[in-house]
Amino acid sequence: MIIIAEKLNGSIPSCAKAIAERDADYIRDLAKRQAEAGADFIDVCASVKENEAETLKWMIDLVQEVTDTPIAVDSPDVNVCLEAMKFCKRPGLFNSVSGEGTKIDDAFPVLADTEWHVMALLCDDTGIPKTAAKRIEVFEKVMQKAKEYGIAHNRIHIDPLVEMLCTSEDGIAMVVEVMTYIKKNYPEVHISGAVSNISFNLPVRRIVNQAFCVLAMNAGMDSAVLDPLNQDLMGMIYATEALLGLDEMCMEYITAYRQGIFGQKK
Amino acid sequence: MIIIAEKLNGSIPSCAKAIAERDADYIRDLAKRQAEAGADFIDVCASVKENEAETLKWMIDLVQEVTDTPIAVDSPDVNVCLEAMKFCKRPGLFNSVSGEGTKIDDAFPVLADTEWHVMALLCDDTGIPKTAAKRIEVFEKVMQKAKEYGIAHNRIHIDPLVEMLCTSEDGIAMVVEVMTYIKKNYPEVHISGAVSNISFNLPVRRIVNQAFCVLAMNAGMDSAVLDPLNQDLMGMIYATEALLGLDEMCMEYITAYRQGIFGQKK
Repeated sequence: MIIIAEKLNGSIPSCAKAIAERDADYIRDLAKRQAEAGADFIDVCASVKENEAETLKWMIDLVQEVTDTPIAVDSPDVNVCLEAMKFCKRPGLFNSVSGEGTKIDDAFPVLADTEWHVMALLCDDTGIPKTAAKRIEVFEKVMQKAKEYGIAHNRIHIDPLVEMLCTSEDGIAMVVEVMTYIKKNYPEVHISGAVSNISFNLPVRRIVNQAFCVLAMNAGMDSAVLDPLNQDLMGMIYATEALLGLDEMCMEYITAYRQGIFGQKK
Repeated sequence: MIIIAEKLNGSIPSCAKAIAERDADYIRDLAKRQAEAGADFIDVCASVKENEAETLKWMIDLVQEVTDTPIAVDSPDVNVCLEAMKFCKRPGLFNSVSGEGTKIDDAFPVLADTEWHVMALLCDDTGIPKTAAKRIEVFEKVMQKAKEYGIAHNRIHIDPLVEMLCTSEDGIAMVVEVMTYIKKNYPEVHISGAVSNISFNLPVRRIVNQAFCVLAMNAGMDSAVLDPLNQDLMGMIYATEALLGLDEMCMEYITAYRQGIFGQKK
């Protein structure tokens, strides 16, 4: 499971405050703790209206002071991501492109001959498709572009766009259908997503997030944007890998426990 | 989901002590709390070497003083279960039969014209089968007997025998195969099991139990022997039902939360 650590994000109020006050210790501390908790990428999202690239540079520099864990440069603006890439010492994750506008054609040529991973959201200029078939159509367009620009499948993370459960009539059936299609037809492509979107507007969100994570992993999800400091969620991921037969004799589960990734404190 | 509450069991040390000391308050208290937490059956297992039926009578009487929730009479000895049935004011769950010896032929005739449910374990005189095919063979024999004696499918709970994950090489693939077969071919038969067996010998067992529960429900499990006082596990069950599309707009999840079934305390 590829963990994209989500806590350095200006859309989180405490992080927005730290960004506004240029609180370097806050950034360094969360970067270090998320890396130690097992993050594969540290997502860095400024979520500011002005000077976004400059703010990202400040954040990225601080993260790189305390950890070698690769960075996920995160902005809805592809050009900001392209700018932020330059501040990174090593290849990270480009977060994100989608079927919207010229995003892919702007980003893929730059990513082509690098080791950068890229997150692609299954929406386009018509918005977020309502059906699995339409999302798969967007996915196939992404894969066509990946072929065109020579982006290897194992560098691509697909976010099928997890939506809130509370307004769904069939649970997660639709997103599971998309995941199953991807897994079956493009086994090397990573299936990802922002886990906590599922529980929006529901009580005890952590429980819904955990159960979703288990079911999504069963459907092929092998990458996720989440909080690695959430020990129960991390434990659930290790447990699920063992239950799905990906961790013989539970050696990785037991090792992660011994390393303090989960089960150590509440 | 049919919840068979597991805490009144003489194989649990604190319960064994209460039984030995004939601590009536202990029995009544756990019966009441498990019923209030949403149990559909209160399992009652004496786990004593002598006077088992008499001990069960003492326990069953106490349970029936405080709740109308049906009782699961639980003993490895079919004749003890048959005896204990007589102490119950209303139809409950016969726990259990299996392919061993004459268990089914002893129990099914008595259960036939009642409203009792019955738990059947997928083992026989050769022990616990190692393969899915062999367990399905035992299952088909159980169903043949059910047909013979006229036991309706929706009164049958099948325990495919969950074994500990820590010694497994392919996770839960085998038990999922058995569950999938049952669900596909006998959709009205309940798939059940003792959830916590999965985590034997592993650290932070609650996490493994919860993740297993989610995956087993995805494979068709709709009944389980578990601790309804475990709020996170109960929440996980409600969340999974919503994720699987069995709880439109999460109304049951939200109602259970409001009733204090989960999310209220740690």
